Amino acid sequence: MIKVDEALKIILKSIKPLGSEAVKLTSILGRVLADDIYADSCIPAFDNSAMDGYAVRAIDTQDSSQDKPRILDVIEDLKAGYLAKNTIRHNQAIRIMTGAVMPLGADSVVVVEETQKLGKNKVEIFAPIKQGENVRLKGEDIEKGELIIAKGTLLSAGHIGVLASLGRQYIKVTRKPKIAILATGDELVDVGKKLKPGKIRSSNTHTLYAQILKSGGIPKNLGIAKDRCSELEAKIKKGLDCDVIISSGGVSVGDYDFVKHVLGKMGTRIKFWKVAMRPGKPLVFGMIKGIPVFGLPGNPVSSMVSFEIFVIPAILKMLGQGMDNKKEVKAILEEGVEKKKGLRYFLRASTIWKPDSYYTRTTGPQGSGILKSMALANSLIILPEEEEKVEKGVRVTVRFLD
Amino acid sequence: MIKVDEALKIILKSIKPLGSEAVKLTSILGRVLADDIYADSCIPAFDNSAMDGYAVRAIDTQDSSQDKPRILDVIEDLKAGYLAKNTIRHNQAIRIMTGAVMPLGADSVVVVEETQKLGKNKVEIFAPIKQGENVRLKGEDIEKGELIIAKGTLLSAGHIGVLASLGRQYIKVTRKPKIAILATGDELVDVGKKLKPGKIRSSNTHTLYAQILKSGGIPKNLGIAKDRCSELEAKIKKGLDCDVIISSGGVSVGDYDFVKHVLGKMGTRIKFWKVAMRPGKPLVFGMIKGIPVFGLPGNPVSSMVSFEIFVIPAILKMLGQGMDNKKEVKAILEEGVEKKKGLRYFLRASTIWKPDSYYTRTTGPQGSGILKSMALANSLIILPEEEEKVEKGVRVTVRFLD
Repeated sequence: MIKVDEALKIILKSIKPLGSEAVKLTSILGRVLADDIYADSCIPAFDNSAMDGYAVRAIDTQDSSQDKPRILDVIEDLKAGYLAKNTIRHNQAIRIMTGAVMPLGADSVVVVEETQKLGKNKVEIFAPIKQGENVRLKGEDIEKGELIIAKGTLLSAGHIGVLASLGRQYIKVTRKPKIAILATGDELVDVGKKLKPGKIRSSNTHTLYAQILKSGGIPKNLGIAKDRCSELEAKIKKGLDCDVIISSGGVSVGDYDFVKHVLGKMGTRIKFWKVAMRPGKPLVFGMIKGIPVFGLPGNPVSSMVSFEIFVIPAILKMLGQGMDNKKEVKAILEEGVEKKKGLRYFLRASTIWKPDSYYTRTTGPQGSGILKSMALANSLIILPEEEEKVEKGVRVTVRFLD
Repeated sequence: MIKVDEALKIILKSIKPLGSEAVKLTSILGRVLADDIYADSCIPAFDNSAMDGYAVRAIDTQDSSQDKPRILDVIEDLKAGYLAKNTIRHNQAIRIMTGAVMPLGADSVVVVEETQKLGKNKVEIFAPIKQGENVRLKGEDIEKGELIIAKGTLLSAGHIGVLASLGRQYIKVTRKPKIAILATGDELVDVGKKLKPGKIRSSNTHTLYAQILKSGGIPKNLGIAKDRCSELEAKIKKGLDCDVIISSGGVSVGDYDFVKHVLGKMGTRIKFWKVAMRPGKPLVFGMIKGIPVFGLPGNPVSSMVSFEIFVIPAILKMLGQGMDNKKEVKAILEEGVEKKKGLRYFLRASTIWKPDSYYTRTTGPQGSGILKSMALANSLIILPEEEEKVEKGVRVTVRFLD
């Protein structure tokens, strides 16, 4: 039996980042950037007006006031998207819209609210303006050549905006790992089939499917293998075109727990098969023909928690994602809890921000078969190996699930 | 000019929840449940063994010890998924696997580690066991008739597990809103097209597209409308098959800001068009032929922030989602900031959990055209209208973006 941190280290050592693919800008949300992106142009690409108003030479407005406005000649009307035909000279102005290129000769923009049109071709300016006021300078957002998004970034709407501004139509992102799911056990029946006495639904197939989707993988459902070596072997073989194979069930000490046996027979290098944690103790990890294989426990909650703690970091490494978004925080424990020394505990919990801090409490019975408390949970309370008892009011580490 | 809270109230009053649709279990992750789900069976459906071991009558183990084990007759070997053929009587045991139905007569399970096989049909029991030990009772996870997932719940992997356990193959979820995106302005050129002098990329089309996807809507890109009333009207008409129409640009005071004008001409009931906030002041909201229409400002950051603050709550109401997942928290401000009184500020910020608390700082210049600081941000610092200055070290409200 090894510790959680040791197990995670062994897993991550075996995992290699996947390759990359070019994907259209409209499909990169939530993908991970494969290469550093440098700006190949300035944003904005030209000095432009930040407001609707009048492009002027600041010097021509210096003595203007509400009582004694300066009167300038309006020589042109300039919309965004076009270039001025004229250069501004002494006592001249160009009516300008937000985003339009600054006309030659102008150095600032007087906002329309501080002006008054006078006849057809003149404007009154009511206040002096500083040089450069209301002008967005070329490159003020992004300089040409600047590193703008680093490799390994999980792409959000903001990044997509920047990439669109730079005119990037295809982006190199890392490939999503294809992950096979195999449920094992004579007792399992898929959803939609008739349930005979003694049988249960293969819920792990569906939770794993959802967990894979959520963490950026592509699930491949291999279905349910009965407790027969030949069937198990045949199903595992169908997962060998994937980047990861996950089985659930069949990894404890029972005579009918075949997974470890069959994996061994198929030449899997088993790296460990028991972790000092609850839930989730029986966990096989190994490499089969170069592919990482996780034999997760069959209990629904053990399967979910093991995925969260071990498979997600593996997926993030495959994706080359720099940072796990599910940050851990500290929360005040709203009830005392007891645990067995030597095991790391992961308690299903509801963690909520109250005015000043996070507070957390368990969502009900913590048996590894109790899926309801998992469905109610938004987080896991993580209790370290050495603890035996944690008092109410203590600050504990919490990991959010979604 | 109205306040943010007032604007939000007006918007939400105009929004109606959408209908529902039945969706396969494998496709409901991240969807919103349309009806309360009650359990139509117990989980587990039968008393079963929580461990691999021996099903016994507790009374037959009472005087057993390491030195003087009790010896029981093993009358059957029971795998998960099957029913025992025999009833357990005095001094009898059945070898049982985790998840197998408890045999008649047995009331507890001795774990395999506390036993020793003795010849072919006997087992030594090394410790007394309590009645009910290592037995999972029928209905201990979920009782028949119990409300298990409430209407309005955002469905996660845990919920999917519970629904799979109950054998639900199709789930009624709320319909995703279809949302039209229209960019306006002569200066805009789509990504992939050649950029002439004075023109810029239509980045808002792409950020809005991503923001809609992320918040559970289905984007429909209407493209770019030039600053001509006829073209704008024709494009808006193409969005009338959607649940929401979003335009960006064309809503400030400029002579060429057509959106408000065209919306009015098309019979839109405009409810407000200026909000006391920064970024994002010019914001038109109205109803066109029963469809809510948001005229967002054209500045990239204003558009994104307005979406975050006004459109997301509207989408959540349409989806019937009970709770906004993006909870607001308090964070310690790592730099002093100044603001204009009377406006609510939304500063792009990076908020990080350090050992004891969240800390937050702005991600750079806050001009509404500066998309880079938005791409770097994971959150918005929200500063109330009445403030003029917030000192370093003060706890401020922060809203996470992802």
